[in-house]
Amino acid sequence: MEDLAAPAPPSGGFTYLVATSQALGLAVILVLGAWIGVYRGGIAWESSELQFNIHPLCMIVGMVFLQGDALLVYRIFRNESKRSTKILHGLLHALALVIALVGLIAVFENHKKKNAPNMYSLHSWCGIAAFSFYLLQWLLGLVFFLCPGVSFSVRSRYKPQHVFFGVFLLILSITTSLLGIVELLLFKIRQVYSSLVPEEVLANILGLLLVAFGAALAYILTRDEWRRPPLAEELALSMDFKTLTEGESPAGPH
Amino acid sequence: MEDLAAPAPPSGGFTYLVATSQALGLAVILVLGAWIGVYRGGIAWESSELQFNIHPLCMIVGMVFLQGDALLVYRIFRNESKRSTKILHGLLHALALVIALVGLIAVFENHKKKNAPNMYSLHSWCGIAAFSFYLLQWLLGLVFFLCPGVSFSVRSRYKPQHVFFGVFLLILSITTSLLGIVELLLFKIRQVYSSLVPEEVLANILGLLLVAFGAALAYILTRDEWRRPPLAEELALSMDFKTLTEGESPAGPH
Repeated sequence: MEDLAAPAPPSGGFTYLVATSQALGLAVILVLGAWIGVYRGGIAWESSELQFNIHPLCMIVGMVFLQGDALLVYRIFRNESKRSTKILHGLLHALALVIALVGLIAVFENHKKKNAPNMYSLHSWCGIAAFSFYLLQWLLGLVFFLCPGVSFSVRSRYKPQHVFFGVFLLILSITTSLLGIVELLLFKIRQVYSSLVPEEVLANILGLLLVAFGAALAYILTRDEWRRPPLAEELALSMDFKTLTEGESPAGPH
Repeated sequence: MEDLAAPAPPSGGFTYLVATSQALGLAVILVLGAWIGVYRGGIAWESSELQFNIHPLCMIVGMVFLQGDALLVYRIFRNESKRSTKILHGLLHALALVIALVGLIAVFENHKKKNAPNMYSLHSWCGIAAFSFYLLQWLLGLVFFLCPGVSFSVRSRYKPQHVFFGVFLLILSITTSLLGIVELLLFKIRQVYSSLVPEEVLANILGLLLVAFGAALAYILTRDEWRRPPLAEELALSMDFKTLTEGESPAGPH
């Protein structure tokens, strides 16, 4: 009720930090593109050398940039209906999952072409865990928040878990990307790894940008005062729905 | 005021999750000890081979286990005075910093002995950032929360930043540890890295345990309902203090 009484727009810091997060996200993609383009020969699905490069590109665009921005929609679209925001959130995650799947197929196909083994490294263990749980989280979100039969009370109890695991999976995806950067450098430029050659400087900067992107998003997502306040009609609607279904109060202040 | 009206102990899940987090933390140290002891020859300050092993041991004990547990004290000690809890929190972080410093000296001395370069890898960049900001965070905490001259309003405004960066630095430390695991494996067992030899299985399990430890702690620390409620006398005291100093209300619900 407090939120309704004071539906103030988020403070100035919010807008600057969202802009910073987007600048960091774009910088991540540009630096990754430069690394792949300048030092790793670019991308090509049919080439056994260049097919691999589709993997980092798709995983970072999908599992980091799009996944991260999908989490931001509730903070950014504050005056649109909850349903439209939910659908945008779900669609961005779906797009992220499809792009990440292409990235996964690229690396598994490429390993097959080269007769290389799969799933031995910590990078691959963390990555497959992140992708599987991300898919599960998406399916659970679909069932809990878009199926009409689910009660207000069940949604309210699941929501904090969904939010926590959303941020956790973003962080796990970023950590996995960093492991991938180190692995790729040690596979490709082991001889000069200790000399801090320009390729390594670029790759390390990519790592730091990924950390900064994750930190900016996590900060925006965990500020209590930046939560999207319910619109007047949503609050009235959810009260009606609650009364109609079971008359319980929601578990958390979301 | 709500907290005072309902000072219920945290629900059963809290105790189980704290116990799980501690079991995971101990498992991290045991698996790390097994890796160093069984596969890396143990530790010895004077040996140019074994001195390096002091580095992962000290960094994980200090920057992960102790740093993590220092964050938990406000959740676990709910009926002790705020001041004692604060001092325990500060002392655990101080111990973590000293142990991490020993770990840093070990690796820099070891590199010097071997004539190896420093600070070229993403692991080292993330690590030095994590350690420097951790030291800065500790100093800021000391000034803001233990110096008597700082006003209630300034403390209230800084507190959410301190809490956010505390969790962020723990996650950054864990990510850096994972980068260190991958780097060490690729330095030491590059020839069999793709064969998933027992040493790699153990090191990968260590990585997953570190992720699980971080996830359990982050979950405990971000549950609104598990926050330490202020004791009756603290609330009265802080109200007095607030009135005496500036009569402002705190910025966040902490």
